[in-house]
Amino acid sequence: MANQKRMPVNADHGKRNSKRRYYTYRKASKKSFPLVSDKAPEERVKISFLGGMNEIGKNMTVYEYKDDMFIVDCGLAFPDAQLLGVDLVIPDFTYVLNHFQKVRGVIITHGHEDHIGGLAYLLKQLNVPVYATKLTIGLIKGKLEEHGLLGNVKLVEIKPRDNITLGQFNIELIHVNHSIPDAVGLAIRCPAGVIIQTGDFKIDTTPVDGDMIDLPRFAEFGKKGVLALLSDSTNAERPGTTMSESSVGESFELLFRKARRRRIIVATFASNIHRVQQIMDVAAARGRKVAVVGRSLENLVKVGAELGYLNIPENILIPIDTIRSYADDKLVIITTGSQGEPMSALTKIAMGEHRKVSVTPNDYVIISATPIPGNEKMVSNVVNALMKKGVEVIYENMYDVHVSGHACQQDLKLMIGIVKPKFFIPVHGEQKHLVKHASLAESMNIPVENIFIGEIGNCIELSSSGIKKLPDVPSGEVYVDGYGVGDIGNVVLNDRKVLSNDGIIIVVAAIDTASGYVVSGPDVVSRGFVFVKENEALMQSVQDIALSVIQKHYDSRYHDWNSVKTKLKEEISRYVYEQTKRKPMILPIFMEV
Amino acid sequence: MANQKRMPVNADHGKRNSKRRYYTYRKASKKSFPLVSDKAPEERVKISFLGGMNEIGKNMTVYEYKDDMFIVDCGLAFPDAQLLGVDLVIPDFTYVLNHFQKVRGVIITHGHEDHIGGLAYLLKQLNVPVYATKLTIGLIKGKLEEHGLLGNVKLVEIKPRDNITLGQFNIELIHVNHSIPDAVGLAIRCPAGVIIQTGDFKIDTTPVDGDMIDLPRFAEFGKKGVLALLSDSTNAERPGTTMSESSVGESFELLFRKARRRRIIVATFASNIHRVQQIMDVAAARGRKVAVVGRSLENLVKVGAELGYLNIPENILIPIDTIRSYADDKLVIITTGSQGEPMSALTKIAMGEHRKVSVTPNDYVIISATPIPGNEKMVSNVVNALMKKGVEVIYENMYDVHVSGHACQQDLKLMIGIVKPKFFIPVHGEQKHLVKHASLAESMNIPVENIFIGEIGNCIELSSSGIKKLPDVPSGEVYVDGYGVGDIGNVVLNDRKVLSNDGIIIVVAAIDTASGYVVSGPDVVSRGFVFVKENEALMQSVQDIALSVIQKHYDSRYHDWNSVKTKLKEEISRYVYEQTKRKPMILPIFMEV
Repeated sequence: MANQKRMPVNADHGKRNSKRRYYTYRKASKKSFPLVSDKAPEERVKISFLGGMNEIGKNMTVYEYKDDMFIVDCGLAFPDAQLLGVDLVIPDFTYVLNHFQKVRGVIITHGHEDHIGGLAYLLKQLNVPVYATKLTIGLIKGKLEEHGLLGNVKLVEIKPRDNITLGQFNIELIHVNHSIPDAVGLAIRCPAGVIIQTGDFKIDTTPVDGDMIDLPRFAEFGKKGVLALLSDSTNAERPGTTMSESSVGESFELLFRKARRRRIIVATFASNIHRVQQIMDVAAARGRKVAVVGRSLENLVKVGAELGYLNIPENILIPIDTIRSYADDKLVIITTGSQGEPMSALTKIAMGEHRKVSVTPNDYVIISATPIPGNEKMVSNVVNALMKKGVEVIYENMYDVHVSGHACQQDLKLMIGIVKPKFFIPVHGEQKHLVKHASLAESMNIPVENIFIGEIGNCIELSSSGIKKLPDVPSGEVYVDGYGVGDIGNVVLNDRKVLSNDGIIIVVAAIDTASGYVVSGPDVVSRGFVFVKENEALMQSVQDIALSVIQKHYDSRYHDWNSVKTKLKEEISRYVYEQTKRKPMILPIFMEV
Repeated sequence: MANQKRMPVNADHGKRNSKRRYYTYRKASKKSFPLVSDKAPEERVKISFLGGMNEIGKNMTVYEYKDDMFIVDCGLAFPDAQLLGVDLVIPDFTYVLNHFQKVRGVIITHGHEDHIGGLAYLLKQLNVPVYATKLTIGLIKGKLEEHGLLGNVKLVEIKPRDNITLGQFNIELIHVNHSIPDAVGLAIRCPAGVIIQTGDFKIDTTPVDGDMIDLPRFAEFGKKGVLALLSDSTNAERPGTTMSESSVGESFELLFRKARRRRIIVATFASNIHRVQQIMDVAAARGRKVAVVGRSLENLVKVGAELGYLNIPENILIPIDTIRSYADDKLVIITTGSQGEPMSALTKIAMGEHRKVSVTPNDYVIISATPIPGNEKMVSNVVNALMKKGVEVIYENMYDVHVSGHACQQDLKLMIGIVKPKFFIPVHGEQKHLVKHASLAESMNIPVENIFIGEIGNCIELSSSGIKKLPDVPSGEVYVDGYGVGDIGNVVLNDRKVLSNDGIIIVVAAIDTASGYVVSGPDVVSRGFVFVKENEALMQSVQDIALSVIQKHYDSRYHDWNSVKTKLKEEISRYVYEQTKRKPMILPIFMEV
């Protein structure tokens, strides 16, 4: 490494973690351009990553300068298949709660769940002001209302190019394009320098609302000198540039013509107001009415229209209950469920289980989305189900019916090129995205030692002289299950896993503690193990084993129930496995009489 | 429809199912080419689809002419996420078991699990001869050995262009290319005509073993007249032609050079012997030894080498236990786990849990496969875990490190074009694949009414005058869980689902039946519901409710335990849901003392 002095703590860091960091850009060019003038070299700003680093979802970043701290975004993540029964996952707030007196506020970059979904849970424990743009505030209000917090929290609506002062921080919002309107990036000024956090963004030169990302403002900061850039890595694996949202409108025009006299159903993400706008516009141009189905979409249309982000053409919107009054070729239905989610409107429609919409071969379905990784099979199931009903389905890459909301490689490089940061920190992505994004930065001559690939819990200190890795802060996943927040841990999840695979066998016996005799039972009850009626002999054998174990191992002198239970679990497990090759949970319950 | 006489039962079929069938090709050209001379117009052959139709996996087709019946393939499917605890899924064999006296044998087209995985289960109930090529027989032997059937079943090894006579059927095997060697298609002759079933195939003009698909033989049958073509639909959505397996070898050469002094780990499907061959050849050329890890791969290398399908370069293979004796740049490890399967070798290596292989930043991992739909997230997890250890990973579309084993659209059309069938039946695919494949056939002027898109359980009768749909035959999914075959049904699966989401609360009470007094308990035990230590108050309330319900509702005059249990379930469910918004299973167990 060329310049040891520029990375005082990489030495420490190198010891603990040299393996994992720098592979892609170790073979880097050794060139190092000092892009920032070294003003105030002793000033340092701390950044802690509580979510969204090395994972997709639950974004949460904490900035800290001396006694001032603020939070950027507070999102949720959806549980993966291992987290049985978990509804959603939020960040561990311990770090900010431990420093509650320092926290000056939360800034939200846009209204997607992975940026606002954890906010209500945070605000219940830490009542601080929330700053965001108009639409984002509108969506946050909905969340707070659900949680009974509305009115108790200070919500501050701000506009791009406005400034927020939070202690010694001054933050300017910069307009960016994304798959939801009113998204912003942040220019964070503090005595240590300027840090740019892009938020989720794309570069759309022909956005639906005409309002292109404010690249000039990013460039102005770049010209003045930027200490660090934290940039969206979601699409770092994809070459080229991200297509404009407008291109989807052109596809809709083509497909609406191809649909001819059929009814059109378009499934899309509820939050993509510009997509909905384009569907409505094309529908209006072709003389079709529009009905909306799916709770989140109905809500978004309402909020979007109220706040002026959605311009609903006159007389076009009809209630879903009235669709029978319109001919197929006079109707477009916009629906949720573009990810094949089991409880969504489109899935219910496809399975013939929706109360208000049923399909015929005279329907023409457009799925205006690509499956999020992990959802591919669910989407296929919906497509297949619709096709079995004779419906023509336009999906995935058949036409350009979806574009991403995130910048691809060329756009990411453009952002790096105009911001010209000294330090580069790829965020919002899994390891593979962060690594790829880092290699893009390296290809633009950001020195290897000025790039930081982190994970949640990491805390770094930035100054013009280097990135210093501080000890990790508390971080993790908090599981929300029903009303329970954090009460589900590994014990419960492991139990659920065992139960889900092979069910449970419960052995109940009433025992006279004085004599040690079994006075009732043992009864054997199973759930999720075998169909009992067809396995009576097996259950009888389990009962026999239970009785003999209790009689043999219970010693009334010691009342040592636990050793009897352990023995009983062992013997029954072994027998059941021999007979069935299954490993149900064995649960002995003894009652003293 | 142009020619009603040609489709006597489409009338019937049209009534029941007109919705679902013909949408894509309803707008067909009305041209109809009688491609086959109408010899023996009264002869009819029956085909029943017991698996692989409208699904990927568990392929099984039954041919029937008068008193003779034979089976093509007998595969398994892997359970989807809903089938909790199910190990694998096999076809319902009822139909062939009901006609056991007619069944002359089973022909297996190739050795993949979705074609041979159900065979042992069938043979346990129906001992008939099995016909297949050499490698396929070798793999079947392994299966039968596991099930203790080896020696009890007649296995007949046959070669491409050989004929098998099964009653009035005469079947010729035709060599095809696929992602496992020794795959064949079938030309099935019977008095009703010739039916071609391609099996899984691709057209590889430069296959690794030099043995290109026997297109001339398909063409000869086409020239003489083919009644029906059943063709592989897996890749019907993909345009163009499928790349040659040899192209992967070229990628390996490039990547092995790029790996330089690093150790190389290649993950691939165990059954892809030609892929393994190419890895070994490139390793030999670059002076690297090869170690193999993963049970299925070790087995395949053994069988492949023994039977002459894998030519292991001299002295190249070393035991996995000796890898520490070789420098990184003298070593290639071939491993299973290219789909990110949780128990596979590559996953264990990535998670640092493999006993024999651990990775460092000096490893270079090539995942020579694309994720099967549904496995995307598991593969990503493995890639991310490897990258966190500093490993460079080549995956998905970064280089041409994988090619499909299935024909794409141009190849599928070529097959239709040279076989020139009168009737076309797309098989081996989900609805979306079958529909797309049907539209390809239609674009080649196969008349709409001569194309049949079916589902499992469908039974059709073919004659030169038309396709007649007969009543469905028994079919379905049989779940294998441990030793249990078919003993897991919806009751057990529903229980497992409830248990997996919210766990179970068990209420046990010992009751004096004479007095109705609770003499012990009620005790409340939960698993997978909440972490009990932190929820003692909740559990105490459940106990209180249980006691009051029993005292209030138990009437010693009637001994009506069931109504008390029902009441108890209701009350506790309601209370628990109010408190937690969760719905655990509530299981009351009363003991009479």
